[in-house]
Amino acid sequence: MQTPWEHRYAQRTQRMASSAIRELLKLTEKPDIISFAGGLPAPEVFPVQEIEEACIQVLRREGSKALQYSATEGYLPLREMIARHTSRYGIEVIAENILVTSGSQQALDLLGKIFINRGDRILVESPTYLGAIQAWQAYGAEFVAVPSDENGMVIDALEEALRTGPKFIYVLPNFQNPTGVTLSLDRRQELVRLAARHGVPIIEDDPYGQLRFEGDHLPSVVVLDGQYQENHDSCYRGNVIYLSTFSKTLAPGLRLAWVIAPPDVIRKLVQAKQGADLHTSTFNQMIAYEVSHGGFLDRHIRLIRQVYSERRNLMLELMEETFPPGVRWTRPQGGLFLWSVLPDWLDAAEVLKMAVEHKVAFVPGAPFHPCGGGHNTMRINYSNASPEQIELGITRLGEVLQQLVISAQPA
Amino acid sequence: MQTPWEHRYAQRTQRMASSAIRELLKLTEKPDIISFAGGLPAPEVFPVQEIEEACIQVLRREGSKALQYSATEGYLPLREMIARHTSRYGIEVIAENILVTSGSQQALDLLGKIFINRGDRILVESPTYLGAIQAWQAYGAEFVAVPSDENGMVIDALEEALRTGPKFIYVLPNFQNPTGVTLSLDRRQELVRLAARHGVPIIEDDPYGQLRFEGDHLPSVVVLDGQYQENHDSCYRGNVIYLSTFSKTLAPGLRLAWVIAPPDVIRKLVQAKQGADLHTSTFNQMIAYEVSHGGFLDRHIRLIRQVYSERRNLMLELMEETFPPGVRWTRPQGGLFLWSVLPDWLDAAEVLKMAVEHKVAFVPGAPFHPCGGGHNTMRINYSNASPEQIELGITRLGEVLQQLVISAQPA
Repeated sequence: MQTPWEHRYAQRTQRMASSAIRELLKLTEKPDIISFAGGLPAPEVFPVQEIEEACIQVLRREGSKALQYSATEGYLPLREMIARHTSRYGIEVIAENILVTSGSQQALDLLGKIFINRGDRILVESPTYLGAIQAWQAYGAEFVAVPSDENGMVIDALEEALRTGPKFIYVLPNFQNPTGVTLSLDRRQELVRLAARHGVPIIEDDPYGQLRFEGDHLPSVVVLDGQYQENHDSCYRGNVIYLSTFSKTLAPGLRLAWVIAPPDVIRKLVQAKQGADLHTSTFNQMIAYEVSHGGFLDRHIRLIRQVYSERRNLMLELMEETFPPGVRWTRPQGGLFLWSVLPDWLDAAEVLKMAVEHKVAFVPGAPFHPCGGGHNTMRINYSNASPEQIELGITRLGEVLQQLVISAQPA
Repeated sequence: MQTPWEHRYAQRTQRMASSAIRELLKLTEKPDIISFAGGLPAPEVFPVQEIEEACIQVLRREGSKALQYSATEGYLPLREMIARHTSRYGIEVIAENILVTSGSQQALDLLGKIFINRGDRILVESPTYLGAIQAWQAYGAEFVAVPSDENGMVIDALEEALRTGPKFIYVLPNFQNPTGVTLSLDRRQELVRLAARHGVPIIEDDPYGQLRFEGDHLPSVVVLDGQYQENHDSCYRGNVIYLSTFSKTLAPGLRLAWVIAPPDVIRKLVQAKQGADLHTSTFNQMIAYEVSHGGFLDRHIRLIRQVYSERRNLMLELMEETFPPGVRWTRPQGGLFLWSVLPDWLDAAEVLKMAVEHKVAFVPGAPFHPCGGGHNTMRINYSNASPEQIELGITRLGEVLQQLVISAQPA
């Protein structure tokens, strides 16, 4: 008597079909393939030695407290440290504004859980982060794509999209995943103003904002909202929910991120998190605090910026040399990714098949478009490959593209 | 312009109202109160030294791999070790049957996500684990309470409840939370038979099964199901989803647990977990593997059994001496909790108020009853208090109960 599991799953589970892209990407995991497909930070700069010292310190000082259950909100010294750290980027908040989560992906899931009713519309940049689409589809969200260009979300299009009565606006203003594009300052201000006028909250996802290696830091949407709302209190009570993470500055394997929001929203998120995983690892929170609190994090971020800047420069240089005419790409000022647009008649999924034969991989851009489109786009990661791999991999990818583009030229 | 957040939340968030009991329990967190309210393991037996050594080993051997993103399914050596470990308890499975989760609470949440449509009925013991109620209410589950007695779920009542067309049956067969009661062998067999006949899956939650300090180990429901289904393959493909955890044997602060299920169910859980938190901390999984794999875990579990056995014995002895006639309690053969039933006219929430004045606390039993009832019950934890605290706390609680029961006697 076999259990007929397929008849037991919830409706939302039927929508969780494994994507074709994921199947394709499994091919890229072979060791001889140079992959620009993932979104992994450079492991060479993980502070392995400092984390070892922090483990020892934490266990000797905190003992069994580091291994016991702890508060859902997160470890208070860590939340206070996050408040101090974000204030360097102009985000002035108190611990009551902060929830520690098990990575930003959990923050996206919890936000879906507390906000989304089936059929609710979410405004997103197109393309946008795949993990947000995945998290919110499970709650039955519908997506309304707002086109973006080299300055981010197009504000005229946003104004129109706001008339669909969305639940919230989701935006990645800095070195966006997947495009690497940064939302310009005037658009940030327009976004804040429009959202407030329509009473529609903004979710600002900012995993890479600290990793700017070129140009000047732009104020976060949450900061501009605080100014617009005249939020002079040290406790933030505005219209923006801000996400960031230790995954790109310290180490993703610790699964540590945070949400900044008005205390009322934090309380709801805490209730949702209690049901989701009780709390984030006590030990990991103490490690992150121990490693970071003495100023190490700021120094370490400077190192990461330097490494990523070198890798981006090398990649851009090689793309200039090897990619054929008709192929365009972004020039991110920070973060982990750049984005390339192929001639319209080229399908990036087909390019990937050929690229894999040539031992190089990227992610085709179509799945980042929740409302369709983008068949001729590709996301390329420059943080995770060594300079040698970038040299070899981009040369290979250039050859593949040359072959495809030139073979299609009229004779 | 204040954002009207309360109008933005999803319907499920309205159901997440903070419970009165949680407010009451905040009172019990004062340092001078002896609390039997929590569900915390004894911190005195956490293997702090061994975990420190494991951290060092893991970081020196695995380096940055321990800090990088990793597979959603979990760290393969850990999944293989779990398979070997559970086989000591008769559960023979392969790595494809195992998903590592961020604590058992996450397993409950993911199971809710993949199975529960709004309005689905879940059969639960009454009383049952509060965390499961909390996780599944968020997905709109309705609960059907199956009464339980000193041998666990009453099978006649289960047979009747199965006619409501439930999505699954949720059961904690060993030293149940909150009652401490163990499901008898013949009832386990009946449960397996009835569930298979009705085509209704069973979720077997077993956080404490390894912590038996009296009597003989009883085969898990998943094992009996394998026999009933004649599952002779090493890959389990039956009707039971089994949960267990490192929280009660190693340390809860690492947030590590696992699900055992047919591979098809594991695949769906993996998809749900991708959207929920990508994966469980790489580093913590490697630490758990490093600490446990050489036989340490089995030795350590023997130590925990001894400590908990002593604490339970002391508590039972003191209750015998100090609790007034008319108050009954269970005598668990393992786990962390015992359960006391007061005279029907006593409200445990009122008792708690008076107990807190006398600097001792427990959890009133009503919230563990998803369909009402249990106002005169209380859950008492014996794992987390030292023998001195148990002595003092139970004496105080006995005095409170004496006062309440004797003052109510006819003159």
